[in-house]
Amino acid sequence: MPRICLVNPNMTSSVTELLLGSGNRVANPDTRLIGLTASKGFPYISNHAEGVIASGIVLEMIAEQQAKEPANAFIIAAFGDPGVFAARQLFDVPIIGMSEAAMYTACMLGKRFAIVTFAQALAGWYKDCVEMHGLAAKLSGIHSSDTPFTDLSTVQHAAEESLIKLSQEAVESGADVIILGGAPLAGLAENVRDRIKVPTVDPISAAVKQAEGIVALRPRPPLAGSYRRPDPKAAIGLHASLADRIEYSATSD
Amino acid sequence: MPRICLVNPNMTSSVTELLLGSGNRVANPDTRLIGLTASKGFPYISNHAEGVIASGIVLEMIAEQQAKEPANAFIIAAFGDPGVFAARQLFDVPIIGMSEAAMYTACMLGKRFAIVTFAQALAGWYKDCVEMHGLAAKLSGIHSSDTPFTDLSTVQHAAEESLIKLSQEAVESGADVIILGGAPLAGLAENVRDRIKVPTVDPISAAVKQAEGIVALRPRPPLAGSYRRPDPKAAIGLHASLADRIEYSATSD
Amino acid sequence: MPRICLVNPNMTSSVTELLLGSGNRVANPDTRLIGLTASKGFPYISNHAEGVIASGIVLEMIAEQQAKEPANAFIIAAFGDPGVFAARQLFDVPIIGMSEAAMYTACMLGKRFAIVTFAQALAGWYKDCVEMHGLAAKLSGIHSSDTPFTDLSTVQHAAEESLIKLSQEAVESGADVIILGGAPLAGLAENVRDRIKVPTVDPISAAVKQAEGIVALRPRPPLAGSYRRPDPKAAIGLHASLADRIEYSATSD
Amino acid sequence: MPRICLVNPNMTSSVTELLLGSGNRVANPDTRLIGLTASKGFPYISNHAEGVIASGIVLEMIAEQQAKEPANAFIIAAFGDPGVFAARQLFDVPIIGMSEAAMYTACMLGKRFAIVTFAQALAGWYKDCVEMHGLAAKLSGIHSSDTPFTDLSTVQHAAEESLIKLSQEAVESGADVIILGGAPLAGLAENVRDRIKVPTVDPISAAVKQAEGIVALRPRPPLAGSYRRPDPKAAIGLHASLADRIEYSATSD
Amino acid sequence: MPRICLVNPNMTSSVTELLLGSGNRVANPDTRLIGLTASKGFPYISNHAEGVIASGIVLEMIAEQQAKEPANAFIIAAFGDPGVFAARQLFDVPIIGMSEAAMYTACMLGKRFAIVTFAQALAGWYKDCVEMHGLAAKLSGIHSSDTPFTDLSTVQHAAEESLIKLSQEAVESGADVIILGGAPLAGLAENVRDRIKVPTVDPISAAVKQAEGIVALRPRPPLAGSYRRPDPKAAIGLHASLADRIEYSATSD
Amino acid sequence: MPRICLVNPNMTSSVTELLLGSGNRVANPDTRLIGLTASKGFPYISNHAEGVIASGIVLEMIAEQQAKEPANAFIIAAFGDPGVFAARQLFDVPIIGMSEAAMYTACMLGKRFAIVTFAQALAGWYKDCVEMHGLAAKLSGIHSSDTPFTDLSTVQHAAEESLIKLSQEAVESGADVIILGGAPLAGLAENVRDRIKVPTVDPISAAVKQAEGIVALRPRPPLAGSYRRPDPKAAIGLHASLADRIEYSATSD
Repeated sequence: MPRICLVNPNMTSSVTELLLGSGNRVANPDTRLIGLTASKGFPYISNHAEGVIASGIVLEMIAEQQAKEPANAFIIAAFGDPGVFAARQLFDVPIIGMSEAAMYTACMLGKRFAIVTFAQALAGWYKDCVEMHGLAAKLSGIHSSDTPFTDLSTVQHAAEESLIKLSQEAVESGADVIILGGAPLAGLAENVRDRIKVPTVDPISAAVKQAEGIVALRPRPPLAGSYRRPDPKAAIGLHASLADRIEYSATSD
Repeated sequence: MPRICLVNPNMTSSVTELLLGSGNRVANPDTRLIGLTASKGFPYISNHAEGVIASGIVLEMIAEQQAKEPANAFIIAAFGDPGVFAARQLFDVPIIGMSEAAMYTACMLGKRFAIVTFAQALAGWYKDCVEMHGLAAKLSGIHSSDTPFTDLSTVQHAAEESLIKLSQEAVESGADVIILGGAPLAGLAENVRDRIKVPTVDPISAAVKQAEGIVALRPRPPLAGSYRRPDPKAAIGLHASLADRIEYSATSD
Repeated sequence: MPRICLVNPNMTSSVTELLLGSGNRVANPDTRLIGLTASKGFPYISNHAEGVIASGIVLEMIAEQQAKEPANAFIIAAFGDPGVFAARQLFDVPIIGMSEAAMYTACMLGKRFAIVTFAQALAGWYKDCVEMHGLAAKLSGIHSSDTPFTDLSTVQHAAEESLIKLSQEAVESGADVIILGGAPLAGLAENVRDRIKVPTVDPISAAVKQAEGIVALRPRPPLAGSYRRPDPKAAIGLHASLADRIEYSATSD
Repeated sequence: MPRICLVNPNMTSSVTELLLGSGNRVANPDTRLIGLTASKGFPYISNHAEGVIASGIVLEMIAEQQAKEPANAFIIAAFGDPGVFAARQLFDVPIIGMSEAAMYTACMLGKRFAIVTFAQALAGWYKDCVEMHGLAAKLSGIHSSDTPFTDLSTVQHAAEESLIKLSQEAVESGADVIILGGAPLAGLAENVRDRIKVPTVDPISAAVKQAEGIVALRPRPPLAGSYRRPDPKAAIGLHASLADRIEYSATSD
Repeated sequence: MPRICLVNPNMTSSVTELLLGSGNRVANPDTRLIGLTASKGFPYISNHAEGVIASGIVLEMIAEQQAKEPANAFIIAAFGDPGVFAARQLFDVPIIGMSEAAMYTACMLGKRFAIVTFAQALAGWYKDCVEMHGLAAKLSGIHSSDTPFTDLSTVQHAAEESLIKLSQEAVESGADVIILGGAPLAGLAENVRDRIKVPTVDPISAAVKQAEGIVALRPRPPLAGSYRRPDPKAAIGLHASLADRIEYSATSD
Repeated sequence: MPRICLVNPNMTSSVTELLLGSGNRVANPDTRLIGLTASKGFPYISNHAEGVIASGIVLEMIAEQQAKEPANAFIIAAFGDPGVFAARQLFDVPIIGMSEAAMYTACMLGKRFAIVTFAQALAGWYKDCVEMHGLAAKLSGIHSSDTPFTDLSTVQHAAEESLIKLSQEAVESGADVIILGGAPLAGLAENVRDRIKVPTVDPISAAVKQAEGIVALRPRPPLAGSYRRPDPKAAIGLHASLADRIEYSATSD
């Protein structure tokens, strides 16, 4: 029974609930999804600088979980995939970024995908993320709503009409698939499915299926290459579990 | 209970058996895999020209199956993904190419993947395939054995040592993941897993997990964009089921 | 006296006549142009899936002609160049795609070219074709008319004003050359020459000149590389001449 | 009198001394260079995961300095430029990465540059850094020594002959400029200048000149675009000065 | 005391004065800037063809200066950088193009830069220049005013409002930095600094700082690679100093 | 009867004879080829700096010819295509670069071409030329002989064996077509045709066919876009015919 952890690097637990709800809708019967909500950082990360800070928090959250009750895979459940490559290097289990999962899935449903999201401040950061994964040539555009909202856990309802309209515009300008991006939109793709003329992708759902798939494939941990685990190294002043993992101390394997 | 068809555009049914065996090893309990073997064309397609001919055969095989007993998704079970984009345009169910599934999966396991295969004639064709999917920047190289073999269904045993050596060389030259490509190598990645220092990907296994994943996500058929189904059109001299599908005749939906 | 075959993979012979008329206007005095019209397939191919089916038909048409009365070169006279790379691999004479000929010619007349055509359904397919030839960086855009028409052989007259207007818009948005694409537009570039501020390219005319040029250069058939003719291979259920060519049977050289 | 801070995200103060020594050799007479050494983290960061952790430490170090005694510019004095884009977003003064400074400078001295460094573990991380700055097309290669060493502050002497040899090989394989990368190599480029046939670049020297140059140009802090300072946001559990900067609290401007 | 020559390949000495004024505003106290104005060619070069002719004139001007009273570095003070790579090959001192200096500086101030200029005829030529330096991926756009003007030395005043408006539009469409390009705009970036929301770059100021920086780094002249000085060669009918430099005659070093 | 001028920007008339001989072998019966040899510059241009100087000489030679006895097209008969874009902008007749003609022709004969030439000093310059035309992705490599030679007009005989060997190596490393580059190799491709396993391209032959083809297509001179003829402009100190062409004086049209 694979245990898959959804690491929400935001401090908003209602968003973690949304993610779990959406993920469980598509998970295999024997998958156990576990939601982790950040206990430090920001209510909601929404730009590159906060993403950099969140990267460190993600590593700490994974280290802590692995020290305590190891999971079979982790999903970094924030659209910019903060810390995804670093986590792959430090930990021996599959690490899946929610945005990369959405994008690779989208690539099998169309030639070009658009990302539709709920705040213009996110657009630049999401674009960095697409480039980080080397998929800029498959992006038709990033389309952002600017509907004001008061509560992250209900922004998907407040902005629904606006996001549908943006999706339709994205289709007009060449998108074959719509990714509805940003953790607070978890589940929306399913709800608006019939009002958009092309397939919609729900990133957390895509990530759960990618994580289950990779767990089933049982890839061996790399002993060479980009993600080889670094040799033990002294670390000072870091979060305890993360330091243990890096120093190969008692609590880590 | 999702029914997923493995379309083997080669005429060698022992290879279809290999593919089914390898796919079933990782499939979900409630997945039903169905193997289709081409009844015309070639024993084994191994270059671009044969791939073009196989593309048409793939469309015919899918059309025939859908007319007879529709499946929930199709896997084009030949490494070059012949006909994958055309099939997506003509049919309403998910279509997964075995090579694209392997490559997108590999992208979540490393920065750069190598493709290791069993015949030098395949290298150029495989390179075309990587470029067709826009993933050339993530390819570290294509490495081909030239061990002579007499039987496609046992080439993976005959060439095993040679393929392991090539994989090790690929790792030396920068590969973070090894894709063992070509339908006759189905299952080999699992068998040699512990003798290669980085994760190995078995394309048919990756494709089964990607197909299951996309079926679970229930994407809507596109009414716009690159894969919108073309309007009905008269067709002359084509395979009957395919013509029906294109002409929107009686037997197609 | 070089014999150059125009392979029209569409079943509309009036379009073949248009192509021959336009080609003969620029051909050298001693060139003999021969028009072949498909006897199966579609009245007019207009999307990727039909292009894939047409690729096989093109190979059959060339194989049949070479078995019967060999030509010195073939022009694939449909804008998406269906089957061009496969034909190069299977046959020993120069094979020229109408769209690649137009694009390479355009590259010597301007930095960026636009493709202007008569149906919006063609745009995506044409874009695939530009990418297939590695020329996306030189494309300023694809501009499509949507004037309704009833007859392929007269669409260039029905849509003339609309196509001129699109060409002018293309120039405004950065095109240095206009390619008037699609076999039914054969000859239009010449007719509207003085109403557009930059050079216009007629694809079939460009293809005839490229084919004549390459025939004059007498390139040797490759014994190595991407287009080396594959070794003989058994083929089942294929069109007879094509099978002969692939199997190296009696009727092929 | 411009005050420029060298932020060494490593905990090795002898390396900070090397950096200061090399930087002062080329600094303008009225420039004041200030060296900051990390008080947490690692003795020496040498891979992507450690770079991600170092990114957060860099932000903390800059925030602390700006709260205490503001500088006119910061140089991130580690070759992978950890945190450079995030720092630009959060702070109002110029932020220069040591590796980007070296690379842009190299671009004015040759068409293609090589990076030569002292540990093979660094190569993959440095390559990520070149790609992060969009300069992969100008990189001829990364060449790494594997001379064992015991002390970071003297590795440049221990490995000198080996690094010269690698530089010569880099020139043979097409490098027009050699960047001697990694903070512990500070100053080496100057010392080996006459033994290599092409210009060598000392990253910290290049960074000091770039920082002085940009300070002299007095760019305005952006109120728009990628590096606009984010609106104030609550932050929990972060380093105090950094949290102040993000929350726009008392101590920050 | 470094002597840096500003080579203005235009014949308008009032523009040379503008360049010197702007350059001196940011130069180090001990830098001596020397302005050279072309004595043949054009009042103002404004397209690719004139740039090609100007390239030769630039080489002659540098050769003449080096024969007479050698400088420590040259700035090619025209936005398209005519002759910059050729000058690097022929002369032993640093050669800095005004546009490359502006662009590399801009890269340390933002992710994407726009070029704003005063005549639409310049746009195509400037785009060629961005591509020549391999920086097209960092260009958000080129925005050109078409305010009529009568005097090159005052065009920056005549077009000021129009250029500010274009800059604001560039920011709207994604520019993080504005380069105000074209020698006649020297100094404008400083004057409009506070009316544009992102940093502005004055190319001649950037070039002076880059030239000072590279002079301070003392790069060795290359004995290998792209910019190795060619072996002596007979030259006929060329400008005397340039011929001497190429033939290694008396007056050259 | 089309008159096509071969502009040899080198001063070696024996090379002009070679070019004419090779061009006439493939020219149409009614084509008249005219050879022009530079009367200033260099015996043989062999690097970027000399190419820049040659660009100006090419413009002068074309201007002089057009003033005296206009031709229908010009071929710039040196492999780096010096001045090709500038000539297109200034003159109303087709301008064909010998290297671009060779490369576009090669693109219709294979997926990737190699350039094989007779002096290592040429390699860097030729690579610049491939990039200038946007064809770097289709280049498999540049292979240079270093056989010493005393006479440009016989270097193709002196180096023949060495060039054949390099061509064979190029084929081994992935070239589908061999371009034998450099004016002094004119005609060699034909002579060694049967000793190399893939098609060889003789650049001057390819250029003659491309020039004939474009003349037959009668493209209109552009009134817009990159190659629009600049408005009249005063020019001082330039070659008389070129100045006339630029100033729209008496002798030019």
